[in-house]
Amino acid sequence: MKIDLNADLGEGFGVWSLGDDLALLDIVTSANVACGFHAGDPLIIRRTCAAAVDRGVSIGAQVSYRDLAGFGRREIDMDPEELCSEVMYQIAAVDGIARAMGGRVSYVKPHGALYNRICRDVVQAEAVVAAVADYGPAAGGSLPVLTLPGSAVHPIAERYGVPTVSECFADRAYTPAGTLLPRREIGAVLHDPDEVAARAVRMARDGVVTAVDGTDVRVDARSVCVHGDTPGAVALAEAVRDALVGAGVGVESFA
Amino acid sequence: MKIDLNADLGEGFGVWSLGDDLALLDIVTSANVACGFHAGDPLIIRRTCAAAVDRGVSIGAQVSYRDLAGFGRREIDMDPEELCSEVMYQIAAVDGIARAMGGRVSYVKPHGALYNRICRDVVQAEAVVAAVADYGPAAGGSLPVLTLPGSAVHPIAERYGVPTVSECFADRAYTPAGTLLPRREIGAVLHDPDEVAARAVRMARDGVVTAVDGTDVRVDARSVCVHGDTPGAVALAEAVRDALVGAGVGVESFA
Amino acid sequence: MKIDLNADLGEGFGVWSLGDDLALLDIVTSANVACGFHAGDPLIIRRTCAAAVDRGVSIGAQVSYRDLAGFGRREIDMDPEELCSEVMYQIAAVDGIARAMGGRVSYVKPHGALYNRICRDVVQAEAVVAAVADYGPAAGGSLPVLTLPGSAVHPIAERYGVPTVSECFADRAYTPAGTLLPRREIGAVLHDPDEVAARAVRMARDGVVTAVDGTDVRVDARSVCVHGDTPGAVALAEAVRDALVGAGVGVESFA
Amino acid sequence: MKIDLNADLGEGFGVWSLGDDLALLDIVTSANVACGFHAGDPLIIRRTCAAAVDRGVSIGAQVSYRDLAGFGRREIDMDPEELCSEVMYQIAAVDGIARAMGGRVSYVKPHGALYNRICRDVVQAEAVVAAVADYGPAAGGSLPVLTLPGSAVHPIAERYGVPTVSECFADRAYTPAGTLLPRREIGAVLHDPDEVAARAVRMARDGVVTAVDGTDVRVDARSVCVHGDTPGAVALAEAVRDALVGAGVGVESFA
Repeated sequence: MKIDLNADLGEGFGVWSLGDDLALLDIVTSANVACGFHAGDPLIIRRTCAAAVDRGVSIGAQVSYRDLAGFGRREIDMDPEELCSEVMYQIAAVDGIARAMGGRVSYVKPHGALYNRICRDVVQAEAVVAAVADYGPAAGGSLPVLTLPGSAVHPIAERYGVPTVSECFADRAYTPAGTLLPRREIGAVLHDPDEVAARAVRMARDGVVTAVDGTDVRVDARSVCVHGDTPGAVALAEAVRDALVGAGVGVESFA
Repeated sequence: MKIDLNADLGEGFGVWSLGDDLALLDIVTSANVACGFHAGDPLIIRRTCAAAVDRGVSIGAQVSYRDLAGFGRREIDMDPEELCSEVMYQIAAVDGIARAMGGRVSYVKPHGALYNRICRDVVQAEAVVAAVADYGPAAGGSLPVLTLPGSAVHPIAERYGVPTVSECFADRAYTPAGTLLPRREIGAVLHDPDEVAARAVRMARDGVVTAVDGTDVRVDARSVCVHGDTPGAVALAEAVRDALVGAGVGVESFA
Repeated sequence: MKIDLNADLGEGFGVWSLGDDLALLDIVTSANVACGFHAGDPLIIRRTCAAAVDRGVSIGAQVSYRDLAGFGRREIDMDPEELCSEVMYQIAAVDGIARAMGGRVSYVKPHGALYNRICRDVVQAEAVVAAVADYGPAAGGSLPVLTLPGSAVHPIAERYGVPTVSECFADRAYTPAGTLLPRREIGAVLHDPDEVAARAVRMARDGVVTAVDGTDVRVDARSVCVHGDTPGAVALAEAVRDALVGAGVGVESFA
Repeated sequence: MKIDLNADLGEGFGVWSLGDDLALLDIVTSANVACGFHAGDPLIIRRTCAAAVDRGVSIGAQVSYRDLAGFGRREIDMDPEELCSEVMYQIAAVDGIARAMGGRVSYVKPHGALYNRICRDVVQAEAVVAAVADYGPAAGGSLPVLTLPGSAVHPIAERYGVPTVSECFADRAYTPAGTLLPRREIGAVLHDPDEVAARAVRMARDGVVTAVDGTDVRVDARSVCVHGDTPGAVALAEAVRDALVGAGVGVESFA
């Protein structure tokens, strides 16, 4: 029994910062490093990669739509060839910096609106998967893509020979169908560290989570995502990690 | 006797294009590919790299200040740590895309105002050289930097173990001191293909060029830069190449 | 009988140019000036406004999604409050520059994907209309919005007290329902100047256009849009204007 | 005896925020609103202007180099015609939004590196002044420019008929020559609210400040700048205001 803990990191830009990256790097096993398109300038990327390498934390390319003004949270109707190229550019930029820091990018996690969009839009999903597949030789083998269970990414990635890793969200409410309750719904995001930690343990150990209607639904995941940019994020991530370790679950990177 | 011919390529952005990249790729031996900071979006980078790989043309990362609005032609008083990171980001992005296309970045050529600035500003020069040096392991060895003879880059690069390659400009007037006549001076840029071609031959074969006062000055260069974005650029580049070949000079990449 | 001729202008950015603005300004009666979000930097805006004022051409704010990389041609799922603010910012920027040049913005024409989106998306349409309405006092009265006949903008604008002006496209094929044949369809864009000019005359004089099935459909428009960024754009715009004048239609701004 | 209190506001961007704008708006009499080039997106601009109008706080256009990544803190060697146009664009954008919110821009304060640069660079200073002068008719009269005493802006502005307003910094150390001690020097920035407040009172009431060598130097200023983005900024601004009021100095806008 083992699980990966991932969080979004390096999401400042220039003078602006977001979240406590160093504290989170002491807790998580995988760092989704912003690549400069929704957040993250090159100096932040370099520092985040260097700090991750120092701590033995895996580095992921947190690729996004080109949208600093909207933090990558707005879907964009991109041409697939352009999207593919933009994703490849972002992976390459962070991978090269990570290598210069003694590490490397070992997975890809799409960010925000792109993450959600490619769970259902096969055209954009294929553009992202193709970028990862094309970058494979440069990475010394195809990088896995982090996505939701049931996402449109899985079958496309399989076709391209790109591995996928499913993740779950310990601080999000689930529907009985096993999907995330949309953020705009009341109770969509959980804030109590004990409750979130207990859910993480059940997800990791038993593969189930209690849905909003009280029933248990299966959550087949190899990684748990904890958020880094909310108040109390560090305490919550720490509670999740401690609970997992206490329950005998090995917390380690999938990469 | 051999010489490299380099030109700036991939300098469009989105809907906007600049120069005839494909025609120039049939002439030059080294393509300075814009990295997205002064020009060049990821799709353009990918296409330019793919076309360069197809033709056996060497790919260089044409790194720049972050300045789309000014095409990288304005000096920016950057913090060296930020400049170093931005240069590393750009090299990495183009190198990764080039590798995905079956090639790789084999040299670095700073663009525009950054090119000029680091010929005399040792702080920014060191920032650029440090980025190239740090990226060395990711590139499988340190990439050479293309610069002017006499530039401040040479001694700093030597100290960092980064190779340099000097270049000359066949279509620019030279002072008796061997420096370029500033663009704002009358006669600074030459347009006659025959004259430019003849100068290129003398530079490559004899290592000299006639300065504005009629004297010959030494120009020690392993590469000749031809411009890609001026009217008549393709014809001029072709004249230069034909004249070099006709004079028995081997036109091949230094990389 | 009178009609306005409008064209997109000022759509370069920095070193990049697009179309022959000065030639078009001698032909059209309304200049849709790019505001800096999909194209158009402040110097281009100033020059375009100054040239329009010189020629007595009306100035419109060609507002867009923030998308230089995609030239505003990609729909973005923006929050309406942000969209409203961004539209207001763009109108204000161009209006202020136009006033400094002795003119003023006298209408608003959304660009590209935003133009199409708000023909059917009432939320984004209301955001755009609200921006125009809120800017009314600064403009000395509400500016009209240029849109398609039948667009969702009309009823919303009416509710906000914002005037609308319908436009038609002389170089685009129409369906029997009176909508534009999508660009991806064969024959969607007409290139023959005589044919386009003849259609413009029928549209302006008779209020009809021949649809792709040969039937006549009503086109109720006070302005005809001619494109500025295609090869032959100037010749085509000139043919349209000459034909209109020859047919006794007064070519003048609606503003 | 009266003095203005100004602070930089609206300096967030998208998801990122900076400083406590609403708290500062309850203290200062002039709000330097970021215009989108170094910080400040249109929604932030609109909200900041609306909140300033609500509180009767004067609105200034805090114009900057185009440099989100560097927060406008890096000097850029801009062409004066481009700089002039960019400054005009920024003033126009914020003025239009301010007018839509029931207020207007009543002064211009250059930001960061541009502020410092034009204190000594007459070419860039003239570009900024020309923008303000050209915008005059659109503003219903020339807007004053906030600058340092002794800056190169004063004589150029006088020539253009543009008023200037001198400001001083209560939390910055002064040299015996009356200039600011550069930030990199130890003791350049003062943090003790009591000390800063006492200096503000002497500056406003007596027109003097104690320099680093203990001598008094003249500081002829109509406005005191307080910083908004440092820890303790609000408390410090409050201390300055309270001390000024307590000393019988009228705290009111110069505009």
